[in-house]
Amino acid sequence: MSRASFRCFGGCDGTFPLTDAIYSCPTCGGLLEVHHDLELLRKTSALEWKTLFRERRTACLLPDSSGVWSKKEWVMPDLPSEFIVSTGEGRSPLLRAKRFERDNAFGELWVKQCGASHTGSFKDLGMTVLVSVVKQAITEGHISPRALACASTGDTSAALAAYGAIAELPVVVLLPKGKVSTAQLLQPLAHGAKVLALDTDFDGCMAIVRELAKRNAIYLANSMNPLRIEGQKSVAFEIAEQLDWKVPDWVVLPSGNLGNAAALYAGFSMLKELGLISRLPRLCVAQSANANPMVRAFQSGASAVVPIAAQKTHASAIQIGNPVSAPRAFAAMKAMNGVAVDATEEELAEIAAEADKSGLYVCPHTAVALACAVKLRAQNVISESDQVVVISTANALKFTEFKVGYHDRTLAGARFDRANAPIELPANVDAVLKAL
Amino acid sequence: MSRASFRCFGGCDGTFPLTDAIYSCPTCGGLLEVHHDLELLRKTSALEWKTLFRERRTACLLPDSSGVWSKKEWVMPDLPSEFIVSTGEGRSPLLRAKRFERDNAFGELWVKQCGASHTGSFKDLGMTVLVSVVKQAITEGHISPRALACASTGDTSAALAAYGAIAELPVVVLLPKGKVSTAQLLQPLAHGAKVLALDTDFDGCMAIVRELAKRNAIYLANSMNPLRIEGQKSVAFEIAEQLDWKVPDWVVLPSGNLGNAAALYAGFSMLKELGLISRLPRLCVAQSANANPMVRAFQSGASAVVPIAAQKTHASAIQIGNPVSAPRAFAAMKAMNGVAVDATEEELAEIAAEADKSGLYVCPHTAVALACAVKLRAQNVISESDQVVVISTANALKFTEFKVGYHDRTLAGARFDRANAPIELPANVDAVLKAL
Repeated sequence: MSRASFRCFGGCDGTFPLTDAIYSCPTCGGLLEVHHDLELLRKTSALEWKTLFRERRTACLLPDSSGVWSKKEWVMPDLPSEFIVSTGEGRSPLLRAKRFERDNAFGELWVKQCGASHTGSFKDLGMTVLVSVVKQAITEGHISPRALACASTGDTSAALAAYGAIAELPVVVLLPKGKVSTAQLLQPLAHGAKVLALDTDFDGCMAIVRELAKRNAIYLANSMNPLRIEGQKSVAFEIAEQLDWKVPDWVVLPSGNLGNAAALYAGFSMLKELGLISRLPRLCVAQSANANPMVRAFQSGASAVVPIAAQKTHASAIQIGNPVSAPRAFAAMKAMNGVAVDATEEELAEIAAEADKSGLYVCPHTAVALACAVKLRAQNVISESDQVVVISTANALKFTEFKVGYHDRTLAGARFDRANAPIELPANVDAVLKAL
Repeated sequence: MSRASFRCFGGCDGTFPLTDAIYSCPTCGGLLEVHHDLELLRKTSALEWKTLFRERRTACLLPDSSGVWSKKEWVMPDLPSEFIVSTGEGRSPLLRAKRFERDNAFGELWVKQCGASHTGSFKDLGMTVLVSVVKQAITEGHISPRALACASTGDTSAALAAYGAIAELPVVVLLPKGKVSTAQLLQPLAHGAKVLALDTDFDGCMAIVRELAKRNAIYLANSMNPLRIEGQKSVAFEIAEQLDWKVPDWVVLPSGNLGNAAALYAGFSMLKELGLISRLPRLCVAQSANANPMVRAFQSGASAVVPIAAQKTHASAIQIGNPVSAPRAFAAMKAMNGVAVDATEEELAEIAAEADKSGLYVCPHTAVALACAVKLRAQNVISESDQVVVISTANALKFTEFKVGYHDRTLAGARFDRANAPIELPANVDAVLKAL
C-alpha cells in the first residue's frame, strides 16, 4: 500500500503510482496532485514530529541536511533513500529585514531567501523530488524515457539540468529559436543539457514537449508535473519551523504559473492537518501589473483565470498570462483568505533599489512581492502588528542586467531615485577626504 | 581582561583591544593577528564543545543560525551580541562530488560551497566579524571613522557594502578609474556604497586608503585587517563538524592574497589546540599559473614570496602578485605539510566545464583548485584512499562572462572540449525525436 500517490485534483476516481509517467488526470484531463496517507502520518504526534525535525536539523550531510529530505515522510515517503538526488536544497536563511521594515512601517518583516540554493532559485526544492522519483522509476523499470525534458528559458531548465547532471540522466530543453541568449541558457548548457532551439514560439515548444511526453519519448518536467509541488511545499515547513512553529500573519509570494502558491498552501495545510500549527497564514499572490491574470480574477471576484497576453516585464520569470496551476491557486486563495496584488515596472524597479540599499539583494520577482507587501501595508490590509514573510524566489546575481540598467539609468520604466554611479576623482588624499 | 586581542604576528610585545583601529604592529609594522585565551577555552572539554555546537545547529534564527556566530566564543568572545551584523553566513553545504570524483579517480572528493552566501562569496565569513566589531567600536566611542573603506573591485567590496548597509554604516570603495564596469561594481553600488573612481592604478588606490586609515578618516576593511581572518577560520570548523570531527586528508584552496590559507590554518589549529581534532589536514594552495608567487616560492624552497607582476587570468580574484598575507600563509604551509600548485588558463577553463557538466557550477577560482587537486591525484601526491575537500570560494553566477565565453568558444586559452551550444531545429515532433 502506497503512502503517497497521484490522484485527480478535480476529484475524479482513481490513484496512480508516483513512478508512473502521467501528468494529467486520465479521466478529465485536469491537474493531478499527490495524495498523502494523513491517517498514517497522524499516528506520530505533532510534538514527536517537531522533535524529529529538530533532531534532523543537527544533520551536517545529505539527505537530512536537505530541507526537503529532512521531511521525507511528508514529501516522498515511499522513495528508497538510495535514489535521492540532492544538493542540500532548502534550509535557506529567514532574514529579518529590519531597515526595510522600519522604513516601510512594518511591525515585523522577514525574507525567506530561497535563492540561496544550488542553481540559485526555489525551483531546486521541487526538482530534487522530481529527479529522484524519475531515477527510481527508471531504475525499477517503470519508465524508460530517452530524456527528462522541459520547455523553459529560465530557472526550471537550470534546475532540471543540474539535477539531471548529478543523476547522470539526459536532459533536453526546448525553447524558441533566437529569443534567448547564451547567457540566459548558461546553466543548462554548462550542465550538459541538449538545448534545442525550435523555429516556433514558447507555446509551440510546449505543445511539442507535451506530444513527446504522450509518446513516452521524454519525461515531462514542466510545472504541471505535481511532483515538483511536493518539494516546493517544504518552504512552508521551513518558515513555520524557523519561526518556532508560530504561523506568520502573512506570506507574500511572487507568482506567475501559480505552482508555488499551490505548494505553499499544500505545505501549510499539511502542517495544520497534522497538528503542528493551528491556523493558516494569509496569502498574498504578488504579480507584475504586466502579467496579472490572478489579480484580475481576484478583483472581479472570479474563481477562474481568464488567460491574457502577458506583456514584457523585468520580472521575466512571472511573465505568464495563462497560469498552469490556476485551479490549485484558487483553492489556496480561498483557504488562506488570500489577496492578489500587482506592481508596476516602476514600482518593482524602485523597491528593488530600496531593498538593495537596505542590505538585501533582490531579484525582480522578489521586488514585486516587496512592492505588493508595501501596498498592503499602506492600505492597512497588513497591519502594523502583523508578522509578514516575503518569499525571495531567486538569487539576484542572476539579474545583473536589470540592476546595471537601474544604476546606469537605462532601465525601462524606472524613476532612478536610488541610482548610484561611481564618482570620478583625482588621485589624492584631500580630494577623497572632501568626498567622504 | 580581554579573552581576545590583537598582537604582532611576528612576535613583538604588546596586545591591543580589538576595537582599536590598528592594522599593523606599532613596533615592527608587520601583520597583526588575533590572539585568543586558549587556557580559558580549554576549561570546556572537547566533548562539551562538540555537544554545544551540535545543539546550536538546531538554531533556526540569528545569531546561532550563522556558521560564524554559532562559534562566537572561538571567534569574537567579548563582542556583546547586540552588535552582531549577520546574514546567516556559513553553514554552507559540503557536497560529495561523486561524478567528478569517479571521473578523476579520487577516493572521496567533497566541495565546500562557500559561494552559497548572502553576497555570493566566502568574504561574508570575515566581513560579518569586521562590521560587527566596528559597530561595537563606534557605538562605544572607541573610534569615529567617517566610513568603512576598502580598495577592491570584487567580492570584498560587495561584502563590505552589504554588511555596511545592514549596519547603516557608510561604506566607501576606492578603485582605479575606467578599469571596472558597472556590472563588476554592481553589488557595492546597489548597496549604496560611495564608489570613488580615482585617476590612478590599484596600488595608488591602496596607498590612499591606507593614508586615510592612518589619519583615522576611514576604518580599513582590506584583507590586512586580521578581524576578517577570525570569521574566515570558521570554514575549518564547519568542514570538521560536517565530517563528524574527522579531519580530511587534504584541503585544496584557491588563494591569491593568502588570507584564506592563514584562516584555514587558524581554524584547524584552534580545533587541534582545543582537542576537537587530533591532527591537521594537508594544505594545497592553488594558484593561477599567471599569478603564482606562492608556487614559485614553494618550488624553490623559499620561505618568503618574491613579488611578481601578476598576469591576466580568468581567476580574477586571485590575480595577485604580492600577497599581503604571505607570512601567515608560510606558517600554514609549514604546519599543514602544505604544497602549492598552479593551473593554466586552459586547465582551469576545461576543468570548470567538466565540473559544471558533472552538476557542480564553479567559479574560475574553484576551477583552479579542482585542477590542482586533479594534478596532485595524477601524481599520486593525493592517493586514492585520501579524503579531499576543495573549497569553492564564490558563487559561479558571478562569472557569467567566463562561462558564456567558454560555450560561445570565445574564451582566451580554452580548448572548448565541452562547449555546448543550442541546436537549431524545425518545429516538429519528428525532428526533435531524431535529435534525442
